[in-house]
Amino acid sequence: MIPFEHIITLDKTSKTPIYRQIAIGISTAIREGSLNAGMLLPGSRELAKTLHVHRKTVIAAYDELQAQDWISVVPRKQVTVSERIPLLKPQSWEKTTSQTGYHNTLELPFRQIIENTEYDTTTKIPDITIDDGYPDVRLSPIAALLKTYRSNTSRKYAIKTANTGTAQGTPKLRETLVTYLSETRGLNCTADNILITHGAQMSIYLAAQLLLDSDARIIVGQPNYPVADQVFQQTGAQLLKVNVDANGIDTDAIELICRKKKINAVYVVPHHHYPTTVTLSVERRMKLLELSKQYFFTIIEDDYDYDYHYTSSPYLPLASSGHNGNVIYIGSFSKILDPSLRMGFMIAPQNFIVQCTALRKLIDVGGDGYMQNALATLIQDGELKRHLKKAKKCYHQRRDFLDALLQEHLNPYISYTLPSGGMAIWIRLCEGYSLSRFKTSDYFHIARMDSEQNAFRFGFASLNETELTEAVLYLKSILHNT
Amino acid sequence: MIPFEHIITLDKTSKTPIYRQIAIGISTAIREGSLNAGMLLPGSRELAKTLHVHRKTVIAAYDELQAQDWISVVPRKQVTVSERIPLLKPQSWEKTTSQTGYHNTLELPFRQIIENTEYDTTTKIPDITIDDGYPDVRLSPIAALLKTYRSNTSRKYAIKTANTGTAQGTPKLRETLVTYLSETRGLNCTADNILITHGAQMSIYLAAQLLLDSDARIIVGQPNYPVADQVFQQTGAQLLKVNVDANGIDTDAIELICRKKKINAVYVVPHHHYPTTVTLSVERRMKLLELSKQYFFTIIEDDYDYDYHYTSSPYLPLASSGHNGNVIYIGSFSKILDPSLRMGFMIAPQNFIVQCTALRKLIDVGGDGYMQNALATLIQDGELKRHLKKAKKCYHQRRDFLDALLQEHLNPYISYTLPSGGMAIWIRLCEGYSLSRFKTSDYFHIARMDSEQNAFRFGFASLNETELTEAVLYLKSILHNT
Repeated sequence: MIPFEHIITLDKTSKTPIYRQIAIGISTAIREGSLNAGMLLPGSRELAKTLHVHRKTVIAAYDELQAQDWISVVPRKQVTVSERIPLLKPQSWEKTTSQTGYHNTLELPFRQIIENTEYDTTTKIPDITIDDGYPDVRLSPIAALLKTYRSNTSRKYAIKTANTGTAQGTPKLRETLVTYLSETRGLNCTADNILITHGAQMSIYLAAQLLLDSDARIIVGQPNYPVADQVFQQTGAQLLKVNVDANGIDTDAIELICRKKKINAVYVVPHHHYPTTVTLSVERRMKLLELSKQYFFTIIEDDYDYDYHYTSSPYLPLASSGHNGNVIYIGSFSKILDPSLRMGFMIAPQNFIVQCTALRKLIDVGGDGYMQNALATLIQDGELKRHLKKAKKCYHQRRDFLDALLQEHLNPYISYTLPSGGMAIWIRLCEGYSLSRFKTSDYFHIARMDSEQNAFRFGFASLNETELTEAVLYLKSILHNT
Repeated sequence: MIPFEHIITLDKTSKTPIYRQIAIGISTAIREGSLNAGMLLPGSRELAKTLHVHRKTVIAAYDELQAQDWISVVPRKQVTVSERIPLLKPQSWEKTTSQTGYHNTLELPFRQIIENTEYDTTTKIPDITIDDGYPDVRLSPIAALLKTYRSNTSRKYAIKTANTGTAQGTPKLRETLVTYLSETRGLNCTADNILITHGAQMSIYLAAQLLLDSDARIIVGQPNYPVADQVFQQTGAQLLKVNVDANGIDTDAIELICRKKKINAVYVVPHHHYPTTVTLSVERRMKLLELSKQYFFTIIEDDYDYDYHYTSSPYLPLASSGHNGNVIYIGSFSKILDPSLRMGFMIAPQNFIVQCTALRKLIDVGGDGYMQNALATLIQDGELKRHLKKAKKCYHQRRDFLDALLQEHLNPYISYTLPSGGMAIWIRLCEGYSLSRFKTSDYFHIARMDSEQNAFRFGFASLNETELTEAVLYLKSILHNT
């Protein structure tokens, strides 16, 4: 006699209907080999009695199992496991009653992206988090954005336009950016030169996939944005590191390398370099463009932080100069609106954009067309510009406020150069003080520390004056007491 | 005398301030080699006269150029191009006056993803579009979703949680899915087994990157979802095609291949196979799981269309059976809510999820945490379930309505099997009728045609009865008149 009361565990509090639980229990037992092809099952009346349920519930379960070919039912005669089920090695009853879960590991070979597979399951958010340069979402024009978003989803034509060309970006947003990029960055391009991505990161990823392989070499800054380094490494390319000083990446060192080796690409962060916040000087910008023409390498210009300048206008991008089209320009709206929104763009020659778009389709089909069109409206209405003006003023004040706090409280322990823009200060600890003191706890967390440089990024834009004060006083208490 | 009136073209209607236009004009001329290091520039008074602007405007431009080290200013004496500018080959004036644009092509070598680089710049949306199986956005609970979204962006704690763990998916959404997937699919997993992606496509991409390389072999259906095939091809892996009949992919044929060759993975679409809409039978499901254990291959189960069944409950996923953890399960919310929302998930053993998450960070950092948490709320409130119930009823009616229309109007020209679920009917044209008749025009477009099978997908879910009638009558007019 088959112990159905053990095979089928009913949970009357579950949202899964009882009849479905019965069907699942029986099909699981068949799949796991406890019930074999041709085996006789109890009649509905009998099974209902065993399980303490109504007979109609069992009939519904049998109906479903029959519809899916798990069982054969001869009405008023017998119910058997379908003959077409392949014969499986029978398993013990005990094994069947424990549900098959996903806790086990995949034992088959697969590629490892990271070595450290320690799994951070903490979801507690520290009271004080010093990020590496995030906007303050509380200032963002999200409400205006979502209002347009919502109205777009309720109108037939707006729905269609939002679902057109989302792999490259909706035509509306790309057309809008042509004007926006010309006005803000002196970039001269058409909508065909633009790809809308899920933030600057995706542009880096796409460009790297197309430009690099295991035979290629790319020059990056030292230090550099670590996630970009990881992307380049994944392609198998060789990374050549060049020093970054107060004027940005050392172009003379780049030239020396180019004389000896074939270089495929150079990755630069021209404004507020990550992590050091330095800006690439005019002299080096021009030198870099010259080198790119002379040695035939592509420049990946990651200008993620173009919009925030406090004491002068930003430098025009390399991509706005005479570059023979071999500059891939990367920008982002995530830093303006909200990092979670993940919206950025790549500007490049059309043949490159076509291939990037094709790869992007393979990765995630496309972006959120409603959000793209809502952003276009935000730009056209001047709302984005107004927001930027307001945010710039606010972040400028916060930068200066943090500067004053650092001078007052942390002067003996640190050194830094106040950046002319951006959202973070790069702070070096003085000798004798180590980053290891800033341990992550439930209360406190610093997002970006660099133990090699004994330095960290202090993102000031997302914190108001109270929060900045709290963070600095906490740092002081740690440094003072050691 | 340098012709500044030609170097600097002022556009008084532009949103770029005049002083900035002057600065951009001069820095462009320097970058392009028309103005060289040490060259004397006119005084502010003189340049103002040449350009017909106020002198203060020129002073502002010079201030900006000086701040960025383009020029050196000795007050009341002279203005020169900075000596630090590298010497460039002078270019003709004519060349300088034309702006450097992005219309040129990248001449340096890079990887080609697609061969056909014909660039579709049409943005006209046809009046009648037969998609390949899209939900009707007009029914979606987008308003409820956005309401939560908006409220999440205005509360400090909600902002922090939305920006936590977005690479794998917010903890809130993953926790919610543990229950949801257990109730709807009999899946037994923890939040650590879940990765939230930008739709099913991204799950396919990530899994392929980790499982395949140029030494690997993957079995796919013939026909198959073409974008999945492209993803697998990009990895360099060998694709082995196995026939798909009325019961899904032919598992006997898979076994024959496995006996001869090492297979790394098998890709299956178990419900409403794309494009044919067939469902994989119970018999073959069990056989496939057995083969995977015997021959050590990973199953990629793309169950993008689990939620829409009209005449019986869906089959439980392969991933809910005894699979030793070697099933990568892929699901999507894009088909429930809106294709543009791009939200899906992957269920896999934890060690695999860790590596997928690491790769995903490199691709686009993470998803939209507000949207993820808003979706979690939608599920917890039961709103998603209510929507699904409503949508299922509506799509069921539309399927039957289309069935009746096809019988009435297109019977002589076509054949099809009515699918038990999903959002599309796979329609074969009878001999003598060719797909080439359905040319895309400004008025009409079919998203998915298969010339090899002489068949197309008729997505019925997104069209109401009026729209379905219009589309069928248009098809009839084409087929009748040829």
